[in-house]
Amino acid sequence: VISSSEAVGQRSETVRRSNLGAIATELHLRGPLSRSELVARTGLTRSAIRGLIGEFVAADLASETRSVPHGIPGRPSPIVQPNTERAVVLAMEIAVDSLAAALVGFGGEVLARERVDRPREHLSVDQILDDLGELAAPLLARVASPDALVAVSVGVVGLVRRADGVVRLAPNLAWHDVPLATHLAERLGVSADVRVANEADLGALAEHRRGVAIGVDDFIYVSGEVGVGGGIIVGGLPLVGAEGYAGEIGHMPVNADGKPCRCGSLGCWETEIGERALLTRAGRDAGGGRPAVNAVLAAAADGSERDREALDEVGRWLGIGLAGLVNIFDPRLVVLGGLFGRMHAFVAGTVAEVLDRRALRAPRDLVEVVPAALHGDASLLGAAELGFEPLLKDPAAWFAQRQQAEVAVLA
Amino acid sequence: VISSSEAVGQRSETVRRSNLGAIATELHLRGPLSRSELVARTGLTRSAIRGLIGEFVAADLASETRSVPHGIPGRPSPIVQPNTERAVVLAMEIAVDSLAAALVGFGGEVLARERVDRPREHLSVDQILDDLGELAAPLLARVASPDALVAVSVGVVGLVRRADGVVRLAPNLAWHDVPLATHLAERLGVSADVRVANEADLGALAEHRRGVAIGVDDFIYVSGEVGVGGGIIVGGLPLVGAEGYAGEIGHMPVNADGKPCRCGSLGCWETEIGERALLTRAGRDAGGGRPAVNAVLAAAADGSERDREALDEVGRWLGIGLAGLVNIFDPRLVVLGGLFGRMHAFVAGTVAEVLDRRALRAPRDLVEVVPAALHGDASLLGAAELGFEPLLKDPAAWFAQRQQAEVAVLA
Repeated sequence: VISSSEAVGQRSETVRRSNLGAIATELHLRGPLSRSELVARTGLTRSAIRGLIGEFVAADLASETRSVPHGIPGRPSPIVQPNTERAVVLAMEIAVDSLAAALVGFGGEVLARERVDRPREHLSVDQILDDLGELAAPLLARVASPDALVAVSVGVVGLVRRADGVVRLAPNLAWHDVPLATHLAERLGVSADVRVANEADLGALAEHRRGVAIGVDDFIYVSGEVGVGGGIIVGGLPLVGAEGYAGEIGHMPVNADGKPCRCGSLGCWETEIGERALLTRAGRDAGGGRPAVNAVLAAAADGSERDREALDEVGRWLGIGLAGLVNIFDPRLVVLGGLFGRMHAFVAGTVAEVLDRRALRAPRDLVEVVPAALHGDASLLGAAELGFEPLLKDPAAWFAQRQQAEVAVLA
Repeated sequence: VISSSEAVGQRSETVRRSNLGAIATELHLRGPLSRSELVARTGLTRSAIRGLIGEFVAADLASETRSVPHGIPGRPSPIVQPNTERAVVLAMEIAVDSLAAALVGFGGEVLARERVDRPREHLSVDQILDDLGELAAPLLARVASPDALVAVSVGVVGLVRRADGVVRLAPNLAWHDVPLATHLAERLGVSADVRVANEADLGALAEHRRGVAIGVDDFIYVSGEVGVGGGIIVGGLPLVGAEGYAGEIGHMPVNADGKPCRCGSLGCWETEIGERALLTRAGRDAGGGRPAVNAVLAAAADGSERDREALDEVGRWLGIGLAGLVNIFDPRLVVLGGLFGRMHAFVAGTVAEVLDRRALRAPRDLVEVVPAALHGDASLLGAAELGFEPLLKDPAAWFAQRQQAEVAVLA
């Protein structure tokens, strides 16, 4: 309901905010654009665009430069450029094998990025917070002013309650009910919002905004290392569920009386396609981690029968689970990330055959299976995108906040 | 983007349409309401409500009557009542065992309803169209005027392409690529829109609007007879997928190298929990249909060990599949319809235990499993709700259409 008791001025304000959001989104996702391109993309008039751009310039969030005409007749259209460093997100990731942090600017430019290996041991919450703090310190030092920090946004291999950033369960970390958002805000000493989300959900978001699934409104991102996770986009929006736990496709039962799963159940998809399943099938140390997986892929490329068969069998089970997901979601695209992105070339044929045999024809005919585009940094980039969401949704609120901060500094 | 080149008048028009839609939705879902209740529910002012109600009255879609004060001091608030017969949907259903038709009025009242058994044979498209035509004729004769028919809306046990109402596959009917919407419009000789959807999707819609899941934004409706279908509501909206095929949870592989499924795959959930699985487990004729299922339920109620064990085993597999769906969707509610609604009392304990053991704790703790409220008519009522959608979304378009029709009659 839009209240009709609102004054016309208030309605104009709603329109203005919505239009500012559209322009912020264009600048963030596409980078520098000419005024003419903004007119074409938003459907707004040239004069409306001029006014709105003026607000971004006044807030120091964009600049205009005269474009160099490329021999095209007519007056050149000024180029609107996002001021990358004036609004930044500190994105972080707690992955299975590594910790990472990046400073991402408005417009999507990665200003700095650090990734450090971490042992696959169960480090304490304090230890991880220490390590994250160390990674973050030089990045935070680069932030132009405290008010330029839009958010801190963290992806983690676990189940996250979105509302308060509590990690309910992270088997790879042996974490239960860790209030990560609160801890991190304290540790980093920032007043900006701290948002926490599951790393596969963030991988899906990143592939949707900046990867292989741009413009695709219905797709499934399947990511795996030790565990198997998923991020699902439905009608253009992330599937989060009642409290944020949705997307745990690794714990779909595909072989219900099969192998015990780390989650306590039996025959979850993860037990057939995860890293340990691949390594066991290849006759290698199930706990060999990423180096062992790389060895399987290298040996298979060199023609090793046993490693090829192991990949085939994982491919078969990958196809079986995907057939179920295709029947449930009717997606346009399945994006394979992490472990599955790396093995895509080896399993694509098997996966396609299994889908042909096992998925219902109507949804099967619509879906394509492709490797992820963003590789190891998908979740980190997705965390940045999650952090920018409030700014893109309502830049006017951000302008107002910045003004208050400036007034406070001057006073 | 809302174009700021729109005149203020056009913006007011957008607001007006949105507010008319809010009132239409309230009247349709709740029936007669006092003006005061409409003020409370929509947040609009009393004077705005008065004007908007005036439009419904002018279009003959609502009436106002003076309320009888129940000894409450103050001026009684007039009661706004939907004019049930002035906007109706012809809802139909092609189920496994029956065909049904209902005339549902604005406000949700079922004005007439017919259901006839049909044999579980593969009747030709023509035969079914004849039967539907016969069911529909007396209902259409009741419609006050042709322009009162909002839509014809049909639920069918099969995969439906939403855009054009083509039934891509209906195994129980042996249909492939049947353009049902087009055929029905011809057969019934109506000019109103004909909408076609999967019957489990419509069951979910009905439970969301008028059943056990009112106000629940994330839930899964599981329905079964011969086949097992699903309708899923995500963030308040139906999950339809890229072309409308989503929700085929009966073809989620839970026992991947298990029994052959009618769909051509192996070990689909349907092969473990569908009607045939129950009857086989109970040592009865797998093709015995609904009477045989009723015999199992009656015998189990009377203490028959074998029938109880069969229900237990179906309950176990029901729980296994639900654990996967709970992990994937993080729903608040699982609604059991059809066969599963009828067996709920016998399997609820087993399902709960299996969920405890097999679903991830965080989403498991949020979800409740309940029987459907609307029983055998869920899909039929859901079809009516689907038919009313355009009217609820934009009553102003409906008002305009009616006026044109009247002008045409007068000319």
